[in-house]
Amino acid sequence: MSKVNASIITIGDELLIGQVVDTNSSWIAQELNKIGVAVKHRVAVGDVWQDIWDALDEESKKADIILITGGLGPTADDITKPLLCEYFNGKMVVDEDTLIHITYLFEEVFRRPMIERNARQAEVPDTCTVLKNEKGTAPGMLFKRDGKIFVSMPGVPHEMKWIMTNHVLPMIPELYQTGYIEHRTLLTAGIGESFLAELIKEFEAALPAHVKLAYLPNFGMVRLRLSSWGLEQETLTKELDNLFNSLKTNVKDHLVVDEDLPMEVVVGKLLKERKETVATAESCTGGYIAHLLSIHPGSSAFFTGTIVSYANIIKERLLGVTHETLTTVGAVSEETVVQMAKAVRETMQTTYSIAVSGIMGPEGATDEKPVGLVWVAIASKDQVITRSFRFRFDRRRNIDLTAVNALNMLRSMIVDNS
Amino acid sequence: MSKVNASIITIGDELLIGQVVDTNSSWIAQELNKIGVAVKHRVAVGDVWQDIWDALDEESKKADIILITGGLGPTADDITKPLLCEYFNGKMVVDEDTLIHITYLFEEVFRRPMIERNARQAEVPDTCTVLKNEKGTAPGMLFKRDGKIFVSMPGVPHEMKWIMTNHVLPMIPELYQTGYIEHRTLLTAGIGESFLAELIKEFEAALPAHVKLAYLPNFGMVRLRLSSWGLEQETLTKELDNLFNSLKTNVKDHLVVDEDLPMEVVVGKLLKERKETVATAESCTGGYIAHLLSIHPGSSAFFTGTIVSYANIIKERLLGVTHETLTTVGAVSEETVVQMAKAVRETMQTTYSIAVSGIMGPEGATDEKPVGLVWVAIASKDQVITRSFRFRFDRRRNIDLTAVNALNMLRSMIVDNS
Repeated sequence: MSKVNASIITIGDELLIGQVVDTNSSWIAQELNKIGVAVKHRVAVGDVWQDIWDALDEESKKADIILITGGLGPTADDITKPLLCEYFNGKMVVDEDTLIHITYLFEEVFRRPMIERNARQAEVPDTCTVLKNEKGTAPGMLFKRDGKIFVSMPGVPHEMKWIMTNHVLPMIPELYQTGYIEHRTLLTAGIGESFLAELIKEFEAALPAHVKLAYLPNFGMVRLRLSSWGLEQETLTKELDNLFNSLKTNVKDHLVVDEDLPMEVVVGKLLKERKETVATAESCTGGYIAHLLSIHPGSSAFFTGTIVSYANIIKERLLGVTHETLTTVGAVSEETVVQMAKAVRETMQTTYSIAVSGIMGPEGATDEKPVGLVWVAIASKDQVITRSFRFRFDRRRNIDLTAVNALNMLRSMIVDNS
Repeated sequence: MSKVNASIITIGDELLIGQVVDTNSSWIAQELNKIGVAVKHRVAVGDVWQDIWDALDEESKKADIILITGGLGPTADDITKPLLCEYFNGKMVVDEDTLIHITYLFEEVFRRPMIERNARQAEVPDTCTVLKNEKGTAPGMLFKRDGKIFVSMPGVPHEMKWIMTNHVLPMIPELYQTGYIEHRTLLTAGIGESFLAELIKEFEAALPAHVKLAYLPNFGMVRLRLSSWGLEQETLTKELDNLFNSLKTNVKDHLVVDEDLPMEVVVGKLLKERKETVATAESCTGGYIAHLLSIHPGSSAFFTGTIVSYANIIKERLLGVTHETLTTVGAVSEETVVQMAKAVRETMQTTYSIAVSGIMGPEGATDEKPVGLVWVAIASKDQVITRSFRFRFDRRRNIDLTAVNALNMLRSMIVDNS
């Protein structure tokens, strides 16, 4: 038994001209890892016959499982299906089950008349096994050749995910002995990548060859990931857990969380466990912290609400920031965020509050207040902590950094109060 | 002169296990297109010597310009630099300018002691031209072989962008005659992809072979893109403009906007032109509409603020939704969003307001109110329009769809009022 590898081929000009960001591949990779399959290679090609053909040739040399997304729509720029038909020496036939399903979708769900072009989506190469797509009109297709499998799926994320979950992921363990892949990730803050590397130099040098350590620096924090592949799950898990515990001990002074979770999920878990709540008062982040807190299921248990006071007049009217504060020290100041944090916690009647005000750029800087200057306040019933940051990036990244750091300040307060 | 092609090689295990979504490649592709270079192929490989080596071999057969990101950090998992040194038959030497720059960064910017590991980032293969990285410690490296160029850059987005903008993009037109690539994109709403294809069937059939038409369905709206490459810019522009005008005429009943802009930017432009303002009252979107409105530079000209009333008590307390409404028809209802829209417009004193309330899932559904049900209200001084939607996706996508459709309703109101 050897490691089972997969390649992902993503088809579509939109990926090569930068019109679309590929989020499918990372989801596919995560799901494959869970069943012991490693993604060896990922490629993106345009809607060009020869390029797709070459990709099929090349990726089938590298991998056992070739997953293909995109190019299955009902319009002329979608050429994946006829190409696969030719590549696998088939001829087009109507798949009756798919035709029934498409007819049902148009009559009962979309409630639009179905036209010839839609019906043609039920045609498939007779050399494939059809993988039903409950979520859309283009079916998945499975081809086998030389012990390798090729799966073609639509590029629409929720359709691809449905076919993967219901057909592909259950099928792979029946076809291959995959072994096990496991990862352990922790997050550190307040220490640079190089210093961290020095700190764990001996741990890293002593790692067995089949365990990989990766450094993932981001937002002034560094994630450390241990990855291992093995034939026997129990041995693998035990070894990796031991190594991970040793790694945690090594970095304990800088450890934020020993799971691979976004900061807002870490905060949400802490709040839920304690049956506590949070509200936010946001200026420069414009609702982004609220968005992060509310995007995950179950957030209504701890997230109450937000006042985005983008205009200064709203800081006065809804958050009680005094006119004097705004005209003397200004909106981007410790005084302002303290008043905002206290007011929003009072108004929303929550355990904690987060308040932020800053200059995200590119415009808005003054002589004393440069782009990237941010003030954050975190309030509880008895305490307000504040901190200023100076981020050096573009607007989008400054907003990200402000949110993650504000959430991390709240995390610290919750943990310290426990 | 023939078309100049580029390949992008992205290096890092995090891309193959799905821990990170690659946003660099789409930015690079957009910038290359602007100077007439087409991206032919994109690949992602892990931190594995042989896989990187093979990718260099293969991509240099496909493209003239090979752009490589990632694997340049100061830690042991980063192997790109020694690999490139061997691949291009060099030996490592210290680049004095880089060493001075790294020393400056540690002393003046990071204000942390510099350690041996950081200093080693100034070592480069003597067969490369160093491309200064003002934004970080790892320099870019340029190699030339057989008329092709290879550029290695850090994977950190703002560092990569700085090196591209200041070195790579200015250099390419000096090395190659690239021709011109142009795209025109429009957005339609209220018509399915298949019907759109029927509507423009004759237009599509009559397109010259060098002009490509692509359909990009998303969020119940479809973008249409025309792309062309040519040697002579004026001819290319004129032809594409004519075709684009004809396409616009064909789809005029469904046309939303004739630029490739996110919906919130379309709305922002309209508001700015009219010196009008907007505020939002958000329940189920949890601040996401506010985030979209505020992420782009200059949004303070038209975006005033938001009340996120995630908890019902906040709908009552801050948005004046009556207790009776909440206990009879409930929070997800036309009455509630109308009250929210009126109240937030009044409180924020804006020209328009957006209010949304719905069930994003997976939990929260009742017998009468399924997951995906959303009510939206748009208010101006004299008018309130409402609409209910039923989205059939996961939480994240339902939030996206709610935001885009609510913004599109506001867009319609602004345009109708003009």
